[in-house]
Amino acid sequence: MNKILVANRGEIALRIMRSAREMGIKTVAVFSEADRNALHVRYADEAVLIGPPASNQSYLQGEKIIKSALEIGADAIHPGYGFLSENAAFARQVRKAGIILIGPSPEAMEMMGDKLSAKAAARKYNIPLVPGTEGAIANVEEAKKVAVQVGFPILIKASAGGGGKGMRIVQKEADLEEQMTRAISEAQSAFGDGSVFIERYVASPRHIEFQVLGDTHGNIVHLFERECSVQRRHQKVIEEAPSSVLTPEIREQMGACAVDVARACNYVGAGTVEFILDENLDFFFLEMNTRLQVEHPVTEMITGIDLVKEQIKVARREALSFKQDDLRINGHSIELRVYAEDPNNNFLPDIGTLTTYQTPQGPGIRVDDGFEQGMEIPIYYDPMIAKLITFGENRTEAIERMIRAIKEYKITGIESTLPFGRFVMEHEAFVSGNFDTHFVEKYFNSESLNFIEDEEESKIAAVIAAKLFSKPATVVSQQSSERSNWKMRSRI
Amino acid sequence: MNKILVANRGEIALRIMRSAREMGIKTVAVFSEADRNALHVRYADEAVLIGPPASNQSYLQGEKIIKSALEIGADAIHPGYGFLSENAAFARQVRKAGIILIGPSPEAMEMMGDKLSAKAAARKYNIPLVPGTEGAIANVEEAKKVAVQVGFPILIKASAGGGGKGMRIVQKEADLEEQMTRAISEAQSAFGDGSVFIERYVASPRHIEFQVLGDTHGNIVHLFERECSVQRRHQKVIEEAPSSVLTPEIREQMGACAVDVARACNYVGAGTVEFILDENLDFFFLEMNTRLQVEHPVTEMITGIDLVKEQIKVARREALSFKQDDLRINGHSIELRVYAEDPNNNFLPDIGTLTTYQTPQGPGIRVDDGFEQGMEIPIYYDPMIAKLITFGENRTEAIERMIRAIKEYKITGIESTLPFGRFVMEHEAFVSGNFDTHFVEKYFNSESLNFIEDEEESKIAAVIAAKLFSKPATVVSQQSSERSNWKMRSRI
Repeated sequence: MNKILVANRGEIALRIMRSAREMGIKTVAVFSEADRNALHVRYADEAVLIGPPASNQSYLQGEKIIKSALEIGADAIHPGYGFLSENAAFARQVRKAGIILIGPSPEAMEMMGDKLSAKAAARKYNIPLVPGTEGAIANVEEAKKVAVQVGFPILIKASAGGGGKGMRIVQKEADLEEQMTRAISEAQSAFGDGSVFIERYVASPRHIEFQVLGDTHGNIVHLFERECSVQRRHQKVIEEAPSSVLTPEIREQMGACAVDVARACNYVGAGTVEFILDENLDFFFLEMNTRLQVEHPVTEMITGIDLVKEQIKVARREALSFKQDDLRINGHSIELRVYAEDPNNNFLPDIGTLTTYQTPQGPGIRVDDGFEQGMEIPIYYDPMIAKLITFGENRTEAIERMIRAIKEYKITGIESTLPFGRFVMEHEAFVSGNFDTHFVEKYFNSESLNFIEDEEESKIAAVIAAKLFSKPATVVSQQSSERSNWKMRSRI
Repeated sequence: MNKILVANRGEIALRIMRSAREMGIKTVAVFSEADRNALHVRYADEAVLIGPPASNQSYLQGEKIIKSALEIGADAIHPGYGFLSENAAFARQVRKAGIILIGPSPEAMEMMGDKLSAKAAARKYNIPLVPGTEGAIANVEEAKKVAVQVGFPILIKASAGGGGKGMRIVQKEADLEEQMTRAISEAQSAFGDGSVFIERYVASPRHIEFQVLGDTHGNIVHLFERECSVQRRHQKVIEEAPSSVLTPEIREQMGACAVDVARACNYVGAGTVEFILDENLDFFFLEMNTRLQVEHPVTEMITGIDLVKEQIKVARREALSFKQDDLRINGHSIELRVYAEDPNNNFLPDIGTLTTYQTPQGPGIRVDDGFEQGMEIPIYYDPMIAKLITFGENRTEAIERMIRAIKEYKITGIESTLPFGRFVMEHEAFVSGNFDTHFVEKYFNSESLNFIEDEEESKIAAVIAAKLFSKPATVVSQQSSERSNWKMRSRI
């Protein structure tokens, strides 16, 4: 492999090029008209303009990208994440053009891209799925039977619903008949279809995902888990590795299941198997992402393995240079996605110019970004500015470093998720490990950031923060009745 | 401990403050008139002007610094490295003022600061010293006896000499009488003192040092070695951990000796025991540095331990939280000291303004610096701009990342050691591990950097570098006859 075209932009394009450069492989950037001055364009050995700003006219133009790769003599394409990264049709076209796609086969993408076939594959390997009906039902008596098998609380979902519409939680069997009857009639009137699904309701779910890596020689390993339970708008915003709740035994079980899922689709490359974990540490397969994840750096930090290099090596048909038993968790890593979003305005994008932009430094800090001071965050794409990643000997140190790094990070001109990150790092629920995917809705509101005035007053804020630490903060204790029952478990 | 005054400047002052901040400890900067706008002053919670630019009027003013600490309510002083860090008198004054010095006792500083008492302590613990005469001799017959015990080649040094003057290497016994007679007569005429020392001549020495850490409860551990054999003007410029030549057995032996040396002076805090290693992997105690070393980050990278935090904890009289058996080497780390020096002009300082200053980023890169774009490197102090530290799964990856990072690092306005760093990283002797402290004099000359034109032509240079990689470079093969016989040994 002599030249890789990176079919992406921003931090991930730079991230990929850095690994390629270390391996002595040339890089080609593609860019839209909005990204003429972007850092990934400057970093690459060569760069090709592929179209107007809108993604569907540029970064999603698979044919144009393949044509560019052929013209410029690139023998491989790395799709990054998002855009074309899980597009099986694109993967087929790349293969047909005689170019190596640094990613899994189109067949694996298809099997895991479809929820039904993914679940069928998982079932074949006896991977636990959230207990529930396999098909839709519209009958109260049948619902009762299923509900008893599944166990309360249960969730009734209208088959035709979506985005939370037509969903109903039933806490105990006594309520089932009434709730089921209502759910069916509501679904009938709302969607013209009275059929529903029943599944176990996980009240306090945690999002745990496993990094897997497979080669063309049939070797598949996992690189432990990432916990991504802190989400806003159902999207990850803070991730960490390892999780603060997995025991070594559960980690081993989940890891083995992740490897099985990957095996079920003959997975080659880096992929992620997502699970939901409940308070009893029962876990259920959710889905598999057939690409490099945004949050892959936390895995790199605790394993010392460069995942992009592994992707490239595997695409060159090399065998993995390590076995499962060679892999160890070393320390703890946390990632904060620094988005151009206003945490005080429902995390809506806040596009503009980075008037000030200074990144933090020192031990245990890594910043993956795609901008520098004076640049504009374009309106056309995902508003992520950077990923701020910290590493510590243990979770406490990773948190302390994240707080320190957030204080050092200077961004003016736009609102960002930095103050939100600090709120989370200092919140008792996060610090204790007692949290779930409802963290933001439970604890974060328009007053949460009042304690951080602005960058200029950071020294005053530090004094207040010190006080918050020395005794239980009111913000925290007010919420304590709503807390879930997650306890921090021994790790490693 | 609530507030630490950092009696230093530049990168190390920032480095120390970052760890203090993570621990929730306030920081006080001191600064000279030349450092009013320095980053360490901006970073601290409070800052005190202590005098004019010259070190002996500012950073070496121990009394003034102690007075400032008392006035501002600092309960501890961290001296960093250089300046007052190994000054036993200062350590005594600090103790007398009721302030904690984050460092060893004045007694330990004194014992290890004096070469004779340090060697006497080492002898008591049977630590190997370079074989030779304990006292001076001026007699050919006695010299013969000693030389046979010591083994050839030997080095004859005039007792009154220094800086290489009056030194003479004797390869074999047959030459001894003549050489000894000449040495004595030369010493007599040059220094008015004909007495000489005899010791074994280590033709191809490597500089290996061990990081040690002791607490007030009598626990002492070592955190493995750093190799610092690449030196210019007898000063370290590139360091790495672990060394590419130590076997696990030798590492264990040397580590045990390092701990013994620390025990000999009841060492508390972070210290470094330096050894010289010869081609037979025989090692000899050189000296102990009773402070944090410039190159401490490579140890942090491979152990995951924050050495500054450990210094602070030990100064608070906490016991070490780990034992020797808990410590493991993980990966490989290299540090390049980025000095404002011109490698093409004998590494003489090249002071001026950082017209462009952009640091590298991405996985496995750490930059500890004290400057930003537009700042001037003051003429009054050590001309170090930054420490560029890389971490990799193994030595090859750490080297590849260093090359990538050097290419990303943009410095204009002054000359720096960056291109020299790239020369070393790409040199066959360094890559193979077959080098010693004579690296620079053996391989580096005024033409060595011709292959790197300047930053603007970096892409052209990259093409050339790629060619140099694909076949043995002429620069390298010309030198091969002069190579020493170091072989890379199995590590871990």
